[in-house]
Amino acid sequence: MEQRYSIITFGTSDMARTRSFYEDLLGWQPFMTEGMTAYDAGGFVFGLFGHDELAKDADLNPAVPAAGYQGFAVAYNARSEAEVDELLALIGEKGSTYGAKVLKPAHKAFWGGYSGYFADPDGHAWEVAFNPYWKFEEDGRLILPKPAKA
Amino acid sequence: MEQRYSIITFGTSDMARTRSFYEDLLGWQPFMTEGMTAYDAGGFVFGLFGHDELAKDADLNPAVPAAGYQGFAVAYNARSEAEVDELLALIGEKGSTYGAKVLKPAHKAFWGGYSGYFADPDGHAWEVAFNPYWKFEEDGRLILPKPAKA
Repeated sequence: MEQRYSIITFGTSDMARTRSFYEDLLGWQPFMTEGMTAYDAGGFVFGLFGHDELAKDADLNPAVPAAGYQGFAVAYNARSEAEVDELLALIGEKGSTYGAKVLKPAHKAFWGGYSGYFADPDGHAWEVAFNPYWKFEEDGRLILPKPAKA
Repeated sequence: MEQRYSIITFGTSDMARTRSFYEDLLGWQPFMTEGMTAYDAGGFVFGLFGHDELAKDADLNPAVPAAGYQGFAVAYNARSEAEVDELLALIGEKGSTYGAKVLKPAHKAFWGGYSGYFADPDGHAWEVAFNPYWKFEEDGRLILPKPAKA
């Protein structure tokens, strides 16, 4: 297995509302909207699929996940502390229209960065963080240290 | 917000076991192992963090997610049907040592590809798929269609 992944897919109970959140509020543009909704996140895909259909696709029981925490989080690394503040302010002001909300306001994090969290319309946790130790490629990919044991 | 994400972090209840699964069985190499364990997945990060600590970091209740389905899936797009078969065979043969298992054997999928699923040691769902319609960059990133409304 190569050391990579290709797609993260979020299950949604209301595709129209969740699409509206990502597209109308956050400005994302899908390249596919039939069946799965898929956004190109820089050669990686961010996908939306029906909550029950996604469970079924994996042969899992589509019981609703525990309210709130779902055992994972996705992070958006912003380019500055100001960008973290702006994005969380946008969610705070307008997110409730879409069922989204701020989970944790931005704050200085113990690891030296600046971070907050929001929940998307289906409760999926997004961290929004500025990490002063990680640099970006122009296209938004991270420039990361080599593996210690490479 | 730029149309991208930077990190996906999985909560784990047993860091040593889960690291052993990704590193010893699947061959991944972390660039960071203190606090968070982090793997460079091509300019994106795949991270492991304590299940409870991750919930706490997001100000969420670390109630154990519903068994099995957690409202999302990550996909690894393989370069061939044979690679799908090989990876699922590896999980099928040796995954139980690490608490991982095949969720759904590989099969021809309705969308024209070839796909199966496994659960990692913490039950996080990974799809392993070959999609004949999506091409790769040499480094494993996907070459995707332009947004319909760009």
